[in-house]
Amino acid sequence: MTRIGRVDLIGGGPGPLDLLTLRAWRRLTDADVVVMDRLGPVDIRSELKPDAEVIDVGKHPGHHPVPQDRINALLIDRARAGLHVVRLKGGDPFVFGRGGEEVAACLAAGIPVEVVPGITSAVAVPQAAGIPVTHRGVATAVHVVHGQTELTASTRAALRDEQVTTVILMGVSALPRIVADALRAGVPADRPVAIVERGHHHDQRTTRSTLGDIVLDAGRTRIRNPAVIVVGDVARADLLLPSAGVANGVVP
Amino acid sequence: MTRIGRVDLIGGGPGPLDLLTLRAWRRLTDADVVVMDRLGPVDIRSELKPDAEVIDVGKHPGHHPVPQDRINALLIDRARAGLHVVRLKGGDPFVFGRGGEEVAACLAAGIPVEVVPGITSAVAVPQAAGIPVTHRGVATAVHVVHGQTELTASTRAALRDEQVTTVILMGVSALPRIVADALRAGVPADRPVAIVERGHHHDQRTTRSTLGDIVLDAGRTRIRNPAVIVVGDVARADLLLPSAGVANGVVP
Repeated sequence: MTRIGRVDLIGGGPGPLDLLTLRAWRRLTDADVVVMDRLGPVDIRSELKPDAEVIDVGKHPGHHPVPQDRINALLIDRARAGLHVVRLKGGDPFVFGRGGEEVAACLAAGIPVEVVPGITSAVAVPQAAGIPVTHRGVATAVHVVHGQTELTASTRAALRDEQVTTVILMGVSALPRIVADALRAGVPADRPVAIVERGHHHDQRTTRSTLGDIVLDAGRTRIRNPAVIVVGDVARADLLLPSAGVANGVVP
Repeated sequence: MTRIGRVDLIGGGPGPLDLLTLRAWRRLTDADVVVMDRLGPVDIRSELKPDAEVIDVGKHPGHHPVPQDRINALLIDRARAGLHVVRLKGGDPFVFGRGGEEVAACLAAGIPVEVVPGITSAVAVPQAAGIPVTHRGVATAVHVVHGQTELTASTRAALRDEQVTTVILMGVSALPRIVADALRAGVPADRPVAIVERGHHHDQRTTRSTLGDIVLDAGRTRIRNPAVIVVGDVARADLLLPSAGVANGVVP
């Protein structure tokens, strides 16, 4: 009888290989199977065991993503064959990564499963643009939402709260809806907004604007996912370097 | 004339050395000076250069912590002496780490400064107890606050919102105040609460309860910092393993 394998659910961080943790790195280089997404450390292949099977379940233009049920079944199937399976995700598995569902599926099937945390884009992508999501005297809380969900009452409250940073992941296509909703909810039009595209990549770009102007600015500069939207005073250009002035605009 | 040095502000994660990123590891092993706190990867000394200067600015029982101004001055002073200074923080430097202030001080002094993100305890400590801060159909947003701040209107709204996970860092001593405030604000007494002490350490402990009972339970089990408080349906014991039942209580 084959011995049962195991599943490691690994947070791959925002993309660069050196932003993987040492623990993630060790599990990856030992893996028999790596099930990966389109985001996160996509350049990992050359670091794996030569005979490791790599399965890409990410969304690609013109292709449907692999449904979550199929991913769960794949993890369980390979682990039942006695293999060490790594499920590699961008960011952290438990921040909008559907990692909880994969853990639940493995547990229900009796497969040993462990989670290795990753650097979440919600914090690290603003950081790459010099934006601290909390800052003494400026932001005492941070509220993180997924752009594809309708705003709830508490997200509207967070957006209105001058002491809170709201971070919206995967929100570019929903930006007009989110902005209209926020303005209707009474968020001032001059509330600072920054959008950081491709954070931690060589072609990272930051657009700074305000809630009132960001839709126009994002259209003009053709902002695209992957991007992180930051709403709040921490998004001001002069927060950490007062002499930088408060000019809005696009910077590399 | 001495060449100017530099400062790296590094997120050390929740404690275990293998939860440092590769980038953090490389910077640390090259550092001439390491300025560190009480939290995070405190066992790092043996991994540093033999002649590296280690300065502990953390809070210790019976001692005042080193004031932030003094820490800033120390970083600038050592960098001006041409040294590679690493400021090592627990978790992530920009999640209640006062990292923004240290970056601002370095920039104002003309010192080159870089930030290396770390695994934030706000996500990784609940995760270590099997709690995903977001979960499809259960929690569509996560609201992170520091326990020493008064609750704002939007944190009360987050606590009331069934679709939101509220994560409170360093909140153990303030727990009675936070709970009283939340109950007064209309948060139901049966809202699930979990407290994870010493997450990712060998003596990690999780206490599960409800908003109405947690103060009594925390007193009975002598809960102490460092701990992360999670409020919301994701804190239910049976979220990922339905057969686990919904028993509250303390588990290792």
